[in-house]
Amino acid sequence: MRIALGIEYDGANYYGWQRQKEVNSVQEELEKALSNIANHPVTVNCAGRTDSGVHGTGQVVHFDTDSERQIGAWTLGVNAKLPDDISVRWVKQVDDSFHARFSATARRYRYIIYNGVYRPGILSKGLSHYHCDLDASLMHEAGQHLVGTKDFTSFRALHCQANSPVRTIHYLDVTRRSDFIIIDIKANAFLHHMVRNIAGSLIEIGQGKQPTDWIVTLLDYKDRAKAAATAKPGGLYLVEVDYPEQFELPRPACGPLFLDI
Amino acid sequence: MRIALGIEYDGANYYGWQRQKEVNSVQEELEKALSNIANHPVTVNCAGRTDSGVHGTGQVVHFDTDSERQIGAWTLGVNAKLPDDISVRWVKQVDDSFHARFSATARRYRYIIYNGVYRPGILSKGLSHYHCDLDASLMHEAGQHLVGTKDFTSFRALHCQANSPVRTIHYLDVTRRSDFIIIDIKANAFLHHMVRNIAGSLIEIGQGKQPTDWIVTLLDYKDRAKAAATAKPGGLYLVEVDYPEQFELPRPACGPLFLDI
Repeated sequence: MRIALGIEYDGANYYGWQRQKEVNSVQEELEKALSNIANHPVTVNCAGRTDSGVHGTGQVVHFDTDSERQIGAWTLGVNAKLPDDISVRWVKQVDDSFHARFSATARRYRYIIYNGVYRPGILSKGLSHYHCDLDASLMHEAGQHLVGTKDFTSFRALHCQANSPVRTIHYLDVTRRSDFIIIDIKANAFLHHMVRNIAGSLIEIGQGKQPTDWIVTLLDYKDRAKAAATAKPGGLYLVEVDYPEQFELPRPACGPLFLDI
Repeated sequence: MRIALGIEYDGANYYGWQRQKEVNSVQEELEKALSNIANHPVTVNCAGRTDSGVHGTGQVVHFDTDSERQIGAWTLGVNAKLPDDISVRWVKQVDDSFHARFSATARRYRYIIYNGVYRPGILSKGLSHYHCDLDASLMHEAGQHLVGTKDFTSFRALHCQANSPVRTIHYLDVTRRSDFIIIDIKANAFLHHMVRNIAGSLIEIGQGKQPTDWIVTLLDYKDRAKAAATAKPGGLYLVEVDYPEQFELPRPACGPLFLDI
């Protein structure tokens, strides 16, 4: 049978989602815990492989097992085996046609900037600290040029392995809440470092170093070297993944933390 | 000259605020960083000594120094020497009559419960997880019986060293925001474990195990053993300390994180 899980994690202590030799990863910890409960080796497929230091509140995975367990074993049981900074948020048995990556129709990220003068002591690895004055309304205005189906070559990592640089951004909203700026972005899929590369250029615009239509110029260049540096990883969260309604997956508040309030 | 600082810290990795032999503390880290900048040994006095695993967004300290430094040395300079989970939020030179502890007229704490079914992966040591159904309105109603000047013997730790068990609670508000419950409490001063002991009994009431006026019975007993167990430390934050206006201390958003929004 196929089981889907919703996963939350603080990525600060991991070399990213993906299992790799000799360094720790969220995937490895999750597979160890699931294998323990299933009593056989378990391999998971995920909706989005997050980078080193990046977090998730809405990561989705699936795996196959023949082990008959009460459904709660895949939540409470697995949580008891996982490190404190990874947790299962929900479980659902799904049809074999479900695939955490290939069935996904959209991903949503939130990039959270702490825009205070001094660095934060609370959640220091869960926020990206930029102390410069940032105008969120300029960042939002610039972001609207990215909405739609475009060639995002200027915002993909040089080593990105995707076949095509074309992606469709459904929305990109930048809002300020007190000392925090939240970039909320949804697309059918993302290229490698795409959110952080977009964030980096929006931060230059928010500082007034570039006009809002600089984003259009950057898109037209189709040259990563022309855009700003990649923004820091600590503030990035994979918060939600969309699937066709037929799978009836749970949709808890996407967070992180109090952000849905 | 006397300098006052506003301090934020994630207490998860410290054995409380107070300097102790052989275990690490927030005070020790702060004094090390300040001594380094001052170039002489610095001892700080704080507004409220928080316990092991308890956090602060609004801690206030003062210290004396004859070292002439630009004011920014006590913020950016000290922050560069501090661990990531402690930071200076503001600095102000104050009159010698100021004392972080004795000049304080009130302290405010926030106790944050994550009331989801499964434990959180994000900020796992910065929230107290209670999975049972909790009715925040019952907790709030019960809390109103604690407001005013009362004998809090039933809510003080057995080893509390305060001379008197009488304290004045200015307000105690319990609110639910999505899966979070926030207990927001201000008093002239607090007894040892007082917030967590109150929280523990409010949690019993929120579960419906006890009626709201049970709090009155507990106050009347003047017996710690009759009240509920001490609530977990992870969700507790010292968020604000009040001083007479004459000192003109900064009052940044008290948080933690997005909670002022």
